[in-house]
Amino acid sequence: MEVAILLYNGVTALDAIGPYEAFAGSMKCKIKFVAKEKGLIQLDSKMGYLHAEYCYAEVPSMDVLIVPGGIGCKELMNDEETLNWIRQLHKTSKWTTSVCSGSMVLGAAGLLEGVPATSHWFVCESLRALGAIPQEERVVHHGKIVTAAGVSSGIDMALQVVAWEFGVEIAQATQLTLEYDPKPPFDAGSVKTAPPAIVQYTKKVYTELMGSENFFVE
Amino acid sequence: MEVAILLYNGVTALDAIGPYEAFAGSMKCKIKFVAKEKGLIQLDSKMGYLHAEYCYAEVPSMDVLIVPGGIGCKELMNDEETLNWIRQLHKTSKWTTSVCSGSMVLGAAGLLEGVPATSHWFVCESLRALGAIPQEERVVHHGKIVTAAGVSSGIDMALQVVAWEFGVEIAQATQLTLEYDPKPPFDAGSVKTAPPAIVQYTKKVYTELMGSENFFVE
Repeated sequence: MEVAILLYNGVTALDAIGPYEAFAGSMKCKIKFVAKEKGLIQLDSKMGYLHAEYCYAEVPSMDVLIVPGGIGCKELMNDEETLNWIRQLHKTSKWTTSVCSGSMVLGAAGLLEGVPATSHWFVCESLRALGAIPQEERVVHHGKIVTAAGVSSGIDMALQVVAWEFGVEIAQATQLTLEYDPKPPFDAGSVKTAPPAIVQYTKKVYTELMGSENFFVE
Repeated sequence: MEVAILLYNGVTALDAIGPYEAFAGSMKCKIKFVAKEKGLIQLDSKMGYLHAEYCYAEVPSMDVLIVPGGIGCKELMNDEETLNWIRQLHKTSKWTTSVCSGSMVLGAAGLLEGVPATSHWFVCESLRALGAIPQEERVVHHGKIVTAAGVSSGIDMALQVVAWEFGVEIAQATQLTLEYDPKPPFDAGSVKTAPPAIVQYTKKVYTELMGSENFFVE
């Protein structure tokens, strides 16, 4: 199975590398990192890079498309060349997927009209402005469109797609390879479980960083 | 706080990017990707690259050292320049850490003599040959040495270090930023929970891939 991971400046590294590792760990996928222009891709933190070996023109179709999130999504949402590439891949993909704010880009490409979908908790409600029906779930599956919540949720999403494609046993072996037996030291990974003061603090930090709670769709 | 992430050809991407994202998400760390030679670093899957912006000579000391795992560890374990750099950083580090088979490299550098430590489940017992006391735990903490189990466990490890350094509230906010509320679709992430047939299958695949169950210390 061929998997394309879209990269762009301002991407969140774990959004891309979580699913990458699950698909790679299945040992049944060929994965390509793809960007508008090949080469180094600056992370959202500005403290490192990923690398795209392929440009859009070299990757006209794939079985799986993964659109990771990150602050750079906003620029992608207004980039017709990127949106057209996504639309093209979606025509023949088996699975069109996103992690975190990557679902905003699927929405901007017009793929989420009337579709239940999720995103990072901070921006999930903004999906409504793009025609989607926001869901407070970790992984949302509607036809061949699979959207995941924030950052780390791409691991869960990819394991699920591996199971659909290759069966539960390969997905379990992949989970064991990743030793994905999570033991977070705290129970603060969702707005439902985090202490309210932590949610408030984090919202404040983001709003200062992005300038708006509706950063992606203002 | 300054964090160095060691990269080398044959590294497992998520071993490096899991902790990276947690330290970056704390918004309190400066992170440097460091390798023997700067530039593109080929992943163990041979399907992509990470990138090192710094070489050893440019990074003589850091608060945190992270040694990720991967099949390329074996070469590092015999590379005196790398082992000397690790020993040097360890002298003044606040935390010397590893993910997955990265603990083999700490062991080869002589840092695990008599130290309780962990690694990926498939190779954990091999730590004994390097003087360590293998532990079947996800994160093992002994003085300033913190070792994590396979691949995805680096996220849990880094959140724990963030909590020790910056307090529980910052660690919780970081967990919320990563939306690290894991919901694996299966319960097969550890040899204790995976179906025995899956463990057997995975061991067979690895043994074929590596040529030995004692690959790192044979």
